Amino acid sequence: MDTHDGNGRDPTGGEASRPRAERARNLADVLRYQITVGAFGGSLLPDERTLSRQLGASRNAVREALGLLRAEGLIERRQGVGTIIVMPKFGHGLDRLAGLAEALVGFGTVTNEVRAAHHLGKPPEAIARRLRLSPGEGVVYIERLRRLGELPLSLDSTYLTEDIGAGLLEGDLAGRDVFALIEETTGHRLGSAEISVHAVNAGPDTASPLEIPAGAAVFAIERLTRLQDGRPVDLESMHIRADRLTLQATLPRAP
Amino acid sequence: MDTHDGNGRDPTGGEASRPRAERARNLADVLRYQITVGAFGGSLLPDERTLSRQLGASRNAVREALGLLRAEGLIERRQGVGTIIVMPKFGHGLDRLAGLAEALVGFGTVTNEVRAAHHLGKPPEAIARRLRLSPGEGVVYIERLRRLGELPLSLDSTYLTEDIGAGLLEGDLAGRDVFALIEETTGHRLGSAEISVHAVNAGPDTASPLEIPAGAAVFAIERLTRLQDGRPVDLESMHIRADRLTLQATLPRAP
Repeated sequence: MDTHDGNGRDPTGGEASRPRAERARNLADVLRYQITVGAFGGSLLPDERTLSRQLGASRNAVREALGLLRAEGLIERRQGVGTIIVMPKFGHGLDRLAGLAEALVGFGTVTNEVRAAHHLGKPPEAIARRLRLSPGEGVVYIERLRRLGELPLSLDSTYLTEDIGAGLLEGDLAGRDVFALIEETTGHRLGSAEISVHAVNAGPDTASPLEIPAGAAVFAIERLTRLQDGRPVDLESMHIRADRLTLQATLPRAP
Repeated sequence: MDTHDGNGRDPTGGEASRPRAERARNLADVLRYQITVGAFGGSLLPDERTLSRQLGASRNAVREALGLLRAEGLIERRQGVGTIIVMPKFGHGLDRLAGLAEALVGFGTVTNEVRAAHHLGKPPEAIARRLRLSPGEGVVYIERLRRLGELPLSLDSTYLTEDIGAGLLEGDLAGRDVFALIEETTGHRLGSAEISVHAVNAGPDTASPLEIPAGAAVFAIERLTRLQDGRPVDLESMHIRADRLTLQATLPRAP
């Protein structure tokens, strides 16, 4: 029975008349939020009967919602145990510029596998323009696979101007944020960064080091960081496991 | 030939020694950025030879990078035409709280298909808690498929407290942002919002109205909006096509 009128509004106001797939998606949204904020107080989800009562929804609808979250890789059904939360999500604030290790203080130890760290004589034109390099100027290229605890969290490629980056090649790239190293080794303070956040399906070459299935949704983030005088010195491209990290911000309404 | 030493650093500093898949990913990052900022001045990408020269990379590496971007749905190869940018991406600022239509002024007209708009007597517990409802209090539920131009951009589910939401049911939900309607119909000013940004693979029920393949990466955003006095009144769950929207912010470094 469909009681929706012509413009899609539901004059009865009843839950019962809403298409089942929509209800399941709404429930999945609610559950995703609850999982993200740790509302279940552990890694085990309540059983379907309890969720059905808490959510004011049918067992069927709850089951479908759980199916959606399983497809997202957020939860898993374990024989004889129930439905478990596969992955706690860590919040990374978008309110201020912070390195991963800085942002995740208290969540665990960030360690980095340094996959490349060297001078690059001839960076791509687009990189050179963004970093406002003079013709012929090179960059320092650093690529790291970053882990939080045992599991991969992000794959970061960083292009730095030579004057800022050269000292980092001797620094503790395995243990420290690039931001902290820049400020320590150069004496310059960072000013701000422009970031663009994309959501993309991981290609095989990204999925493999991140230990996720090819096609899994990941954040692809570009970040151009400037010194306090406005000069761009650090252009990063990060692929971050979206099953492990949530980006968070508090936004003020404009006056 | 692999000249990487034991800890993964490349002592030669040469591009040639880097694994091909890594180079392709780096090039894809550069190209994605260029596409996003409209660096190619249109919807047609330069040919592989030109890209190879501009990027200082082999034709093979360029071809692989283009393959990655095709897999992301960003570009398409058209017989007899070349490689075209399928989708311009619109920037949505994360610096301040804005509705979609407000944020996309100048990009085109946002129109909304109202899929549901009604009172809901018994919201899910998790929703009631987040909106700090008293026991027995209902909400107003609004669900809209939002289009920019002809194409779907996002699927939004909104739960509003009764006092704030009731007036909206008579408002122009097909043409306006909920934020603007709240401020106009209630006389209250919005204060701020907390957002959490996820990247997820779209389930079939989300993919279908958004007209994307199931499994495509989408942004799933929760946004809790408060009045100026701090009271939460609007809890939204949005699924946004990530091939059409980029989230952007400028972040200051903490003092």
